[in-house]
Amino acid sequence: MNLPLGYRYAAAYAGIRKVQKDDIGLIVSDHPASAAAVFTQNVVQASPVRLARKNLASSKGKAAAILVNAGNANCATRTGDAVARISCKAAAKALGMKPMYVLPASTGVIGVELDPKLILSALPELTGKLSVDGFEAVANAILTTDTRMKVASMELRFSGKPVRVAGMTKGSGMIHPNMATTLGFVMTDAAISPSELSRMLRAATKDSYNSLTVDGDTSTNDMVAVLANGAAAVSIGSRERGTLQEAIGSVMVSLAEQIAADGEGARKLIVIRAAGFRNEGEARQIARSVASSPLVKTAVAGSDPNWGRILSAAGYSGVAFDPSDIDIYLQDVLVCRKGLAADYDEDKLKESLGRGEVRILVQQAGRGKGEARYFTCDLTEGYIQINGSYRT
Amino acid sequence: MNLPLGYRYAAAYAGIRKVQKDDIGLIVSDHPASAAAVFTQNVVQASPVRLARKNLASSKGKAAAILVNAGNANCATRTGDAVARISCKAAAKALGMKPMYVLPASTGVIGVELDPKLILSALPELTGKLSVDGFEAVANAILTTDTRMKVASMELRFSGKPVRVAGMTKGSGMIHPNMATTLGFVMTDAAISPSELSRMLRAATKDSYNSLTVDGDTSTNDMVAVLANGAAAVSIGSRERGTLQEAIGSVMVSLAEQIAADGEGARKLIVIRAAGFRNEGEARQIARSVASSPLVKTAVAGSDPNWGRILSAAGYSGVAFDPSDIDIYLQDVLVCRKGLAADYDEDKLKESLGRGEVRILVQQAGRGKGEARYFTCDLTEGYIQINGSYRT
Repeated sequence: MNLPLGYRYAAAYAGIRKVQKDDIGLIVSDHPASAAAVFTQNVVQASPVRLARKNLASSKGKAAAILVNAGNANCATRTGDAVARISCKAAAKALGMKPMYVLPASTGVIGVELDPKLILSALPELTGKLSVDGFEAVANAILTTDTRMKVASMELRFSGKPVRVAGMTKGSGMIHPNMATTLGFVMTDAAISPSELSRMLRAATKDSYNSLTVDGDTSTNDMVAVLANGAAAVSIGSRERGTLQEAIGSVMVSLAEQIAADGEGARKLIVIRAAGFRNEGEARQIARSVASSPLVKTAVAGSDPNWGRILSAAGYSGVAFDPSDIDIYLQDVLVCRKGLAADYDEDKLKESLGRGEVRILVQQAGRGKGEARYFTCDLTEGYIQINGSYRT
Repeated sequence: MNLPLGYRYAAAYAGIRKVQKDDIGLIVSDHPASAAAVFTQNVVQASPVRLARKNLASSKGKAAAILVNAGNANCATRTGDAVARISCKAAAKALGMKPMYVLPASTGVIGVELDPKLILSALPELTGKLSVDGFEAVANAILTTDTRMKVASMELRFSGKPVRVAGMTKGSGMIHPNMATTLGFVMTDAAISPSELSRMLRAATKDSYNSLTVDGDTSTNDMVAVLANGAAAVSIGSRERGTLQEAIGSVMVSLAEQIAADGEGARKLIVIRAAGFRNEGEARQIARSVASSPLVKTAVAGSDPNWGRILSAAGYSGVAFDPSDIDIYLQDVLVCRKGLAADYDEDKLKESLGRGEVRILVQQAGRGKGEARYFTCDLTEGYIQINGSYRT
């Protein structure tokens, strides 16, 4: 990976989770960076979410560090606000910056007190370890029920000079639009104003993290933050801004796809496209309804080309349509033509549904150009096993 | 069971489902009855749903028979409308009534042509078998992935004379408010006008079938119909109407509870109550959000008192509240007090969560008297096993 310049990373085991596996991470920009973040829409918000929002407001969209822990959400606890504040203050002191430049983030169980001493004791090790090579160590430390690390990066050229975007994310259950138990951190060495960065983040979120569902649960803790520190020392005009926007978008879509593919218990990534609807909003509603249907997701798990469930899920999406205008494709095979069964080779299709990626297209004839894409995964016994006894 | 007077029932095996188990049923009222029905809100509607609605309109709210089959939804097929029409016409002829007095209903797989000959061939056996004792035979014939028959009944006394209400239902997956793969038939021998009956049905549906979720999927076929034939020969005043309304409501709540308890793969019925919200609508939104959360449902499956997931699900319901106003009870044990962990005996609570019925109460302090109840079930590996290969 070609990582953006001017960032250092470190991870350590602070003893927050029971198993001995890194559970705390630190991302530091050598200079205060433009920063933007999107947060969970849940009315129950963890202390780090509230403090990160507050810090970004105080700093007017600047940040120089992200302090993240896994194993405890620091949510719905008596001491949560103080723990987040003390941790950021201590990290800021160790790094020689103002506390408002530190963005806190947590993921893990809700309602259990988080001992701030665990974080404070780990800080010397963390700051001592900071290095440009620590990117993957942090990407691993933030994982919870995830089975694999999720990172993505891109390198652009502006007037021949390289600019880089890299991101890491976590999350595999409790994933639903408007943020979920998702943490995402995207770094770039492009120079861009906080307001412009915020606009880019919001646009990119719509097509990535907000087009993603694993189980319909939206958590209390989630945030995707992006930092832009300008270390590439390249000037950015309006054309470059467009390219940068696309790069941030691509990195975030890749991260979102990786989350869906690693959904709890998942064996398959499902990419649902709805096309030919009146507008993007209606298309998104259709794609989301299909992506959220447990019956569709279990059928995909069983490699069963049960298009009736897809048509039915589209039908209760809230979007009005005439079923006889609808074609459905599974793995590019037409399975439902004008709302009725099409002729296709069922054995061959079942075999291709066994692949790691399943594509569903719901296409309406003659109504418009509204199109949207949604990411999810199949629903398997594994999801139940993981979630039946996560806490205890 | 004390069944309402003036109804006869029959079931038979028509060869619609592969396994040899009754798959067709007939309910006949000796005289045209007042009739009302509520139907799926899915824009994809099966042919019998559309024809039943049409017949009720033509007859101005009268019906004398219900013809129902399992094993094939008669939905999204080329010949569906004709099959439903031909079947009702043949049944009407055999019973000596007008076709518009026959309400058709189907449940089963979508998108597979239903051979009308199977139904026509079964009609002589069905009409020959009609008897007051056939109630449970029909209740069994309509089952699909259900593991048990679902019936409920009540006997009332109006001026010392008995009036009866009895119902049967099916459905265990694809269950969500606004009807799901649910069929429900409620019969009473009270005399009541079609418009009054329709009002009673709609009120009762809100607290029963529309307060029920198994997996969030709403099907293409569902209907709950109620018939009132007046065979009890008892006069009904405004007080009796209130009592009858309550009886229909109780029977339908019992049927809805039985559906939730028999949800696909379920081992436990979950009854969620939200109280202290600004109005009933907000309370229902909260209860529904908790009932729809796979994380809550898997936690209950694992007897895990994970109240953080309940608080989080309430938090993303769309209702604004302050978490510090929220108390949560599990099996009447206070587990979350003012948004924070309460003191309770975890081992004892875990044991009581092992029971067949789990009660969850989300209580808001000092905001209002809005209250609502929702029914669902735990989410287990069984759900996945049933749905991964239902069709093939």
